[in-house]
Amino acid sequence: MKSFTPPTRILMGPGPSVVHPRILDAMARPTIGHLDPAFVDMMDEVKEMLKYAFKTENALTMPVSAPGSAGMETCFVNLVEPGDKVIVCINGVFGLRMKENVTRLGGEAVVVEDEWGTAVSPEKVEQALVENPDTKIVAFVHAETSTGALSDAKTLCQIANQHGCINIVDAVTSLAGSELRVDEWGIDAIYSGSQKCLSAMPGLSPVSFSERAIEKLTNRKTPVTSWFLDLNLVMGYWGKGSKRAYHHTAPVNTLYGLHESLVMLSEEGIENSWSRHQQNHILLRDGLNNLGINYLVDEASRLPQLNSVLIPQDQDDLGVRSSLLENYNIDIGAGLGPLEGKIWRIGLMGHTSRKKNIELLLSALKDTLQKKKV
Amino acid sequence: MKSFTPPTRILMGPGPSVVHPRILDAMARPTIGHLDPAFVDMMDEVKEMLKYAFKTENALTMPVSAPGSAGMETCFVNLVEPGDKVIVCINGVFGLRMKENVTRLGGEAVVVEDEWGTAVSPEKVEQALVENPDTKIVAFVHAETSTGALSDAKTLCQIANQHGCINIVDAVTSLAGSELRVDEWGIDAIYSGSQKCLSAMPGLSPVSFSERAIEKLTNRKTPVTSWFLDLNLVMGYWGKGSKRAYHHTAPVNTLYGLHESLVMLSEEGIENSWSRHQQNHILLRDGLNNLGINYLVDEASRLPQLNSVLIPQDQDDLGVRSSLLENYNIDIGAGLGPLEGKIWRIGLMGHTSRKKNIELLLSALKDTLQKKKV
Repeated sequence: MKSFTPPTRILMGPGPSVVHPRILDAMARPTIGHLDPAFVDMMDEVKEMLKYAFKTENALTMPVSAPGSAGMETCFVNLVEPGDKVIVCINGVFGLRMKENVTRLGGEAVVVEDEWGTAVSPEKVEQALVENPDTKIVAFVHAETSTGALSDAKTLCQIANQHGCINIVDAVTSLAGSELRVDEWGIDAIYSGSQKCLSAMPGLSPVSFSERAIEKLTNRKTPVTSWFLDLNLVMGYWGKGSKRAYHHTAPVNTLYGLHESLVMLSEEGIENSWSRHQQNHILLRDGLNNLGINYLVDEASRLPQLNSVLIPQDQDDLGVRSSLLENYNIDIGAGLGPLEGKIWRIGLMGHTSRKKNIELLLSALKDTLQKKKV
Repeated sequence: MKSFTPPTRILMGPGPSVVHPRILDAMARPTIGHLDPAFVDMMDEVKEMLKYAFKTENALTMPVSAPGSAGMETCFVNLVEPGDKVIVCINGVFGLRMKENVTRLGGEAVVVEDEWGTAVSPEKVEQALVENPDTKIVAFVHAETSTGALSDAKTLCQIANQHGCINIVDAVTSLAGSELRVDEWGIDAIYSGSQKCLSAMPGLSPVSFSERAIEKLTNRKTPVTSWFLDLNLVMGYWGKGSKRAYHHTAPVNTLYGLHESLVMLSEEGIENSWSRHQQNHILLRDGLNNLGINYLVDEASRLPQLNSVLIPQDQDDLGVRSSLLENYNIDIGAGLGPLEGKIWRIGLMGHTSRKKNIELLLSALKDTLQKKKV
């Protein structure tokens, strides 16, 4: 067996995004112990910078030591108890996954469905809450990575709060790419991923829990079924003070990378990061329009960082994607589930969201579509 | 906030171990997509090399995308169903954690206890199986990282098999450091960690499941409560063939690191790695004896890679450890639970297990103990 040398790709799919050399450099720094005083100080900085990124003062704000799916599971396994009624909004793959989480934990999922490619309907959620007054939790995806649709998190949380429910919000793709205000919007439990608009490497899932969420957690009648994700235990390691209890071995170097990406975010400013994603999205949209390529999602609900576009009828899905990868080293994403073969997902997340990449993609796409016409 | 530059430590605790520069270099290579054909080829190589390290032909051999604690949970959450009787051998922290896993999943734990610092008693396990003929699973820790005791995995698995039970084996600290033969010893489900004798960075947990374990998994009456760790789903991503189903985003760069560490292991040879750990252990042991420092564990059950030694009565635990860290950049481990303040844990794992490090530690320890005498 030989050492692995990856090709250099331009990552323009649904994540991971292109990782900045500063972050790659950080990853290669010497590993130190997960209880080393120097590491504990770094953990505190990561927590502070995540609070900045989430726009929250929540004390329980930290990265879970596993990818975004584990962040989702952290929210559900800590907050859902057997028998709890949970309204799950499904308008794409990740809503479906939320439902899986609820039912596997013995919760009762009340599904509010919207067409894939559209936003979650606040009216339907309101209606479901009226019909199910015993609902404990409302869960929805802020930015559906599988469809490119943005939902109105502020309004949805407001409705949930009015009905006395905790909310769980998937912000895997939205954090640092779209406006997101955890405290102002009354978000109770939120999870994200390191490899999207933060442009760190995959493997960490930032989460944040409000006081209200912690109250539900601490008043559980049954133990959290997961030992690894039980926040009562995890907080002993990530909590306040210099004395940290060993829980699990944190992914030290991946945390170096996340730390560096958060330093870069604080240098740019969170609002500037949102604007940059929006501006570059406009650039891409105009270029795609010139090529006659249309979006799946209506303009009002369109995610700037995840552009899902309809595959032209005279084009072969896999043929075009393979050609972009082989000839231009550009990696764009396929559709998932019912959208497989129907859309491409073009990511402009984090360090990928630059004018240079957009120009390169548009030029490569133009050539490829001409050559590949079926 | 500023970029984080870690101090350069000599990691001689219970893990992470010193990471070889080749592995750090691998970590810093450009991130590619988790479904990229080049990445899928690399995944196949990782699987093959893990089979070599575990000495198994098990098709279901792969790294879980999270630290060792999640590897433990992967074994229990997939194999334990509510009501299942599980014999859990407790002779340290990780046996306790196994019990937590069993009870949180609704299983019934039958505890076989041995003193911390001793091996699991095969006679007691046999006795427990006779008294509990309806036992489904026997779980034990091969190399107890909290005490430095090695148990006889071969005999324990034999006993479990004779009583028609599946076994679950914790090999977090043993893999690549102590003799371990998954197929020959009849091990059914095993998990390890990337940051111990493999000297990769923390964040991955290699696991392997036998056909018998898979049979129990596929015949479950209840769904696996964890979506993230459900092997039925994970295998869609890590399984055979070039078509991989998206499950979660794998920690791409951390896998580069594990790949490189496994290449290095195959260069050295697994048996040579076991011998090296043993030889260096003897070197350390003799040096410690010269300093008048004694081991917690009897010679017969002593782990070469995790040396737990009794803190001399005239020495202050934290004072000595802090002094080693501040003055020599040497990180040794504290005791856990009832052994806190009573032992130090000196790791000689993976790339840490070199003559140079042992000499440095012995010299630093000699000076420090003289200066710090209470």
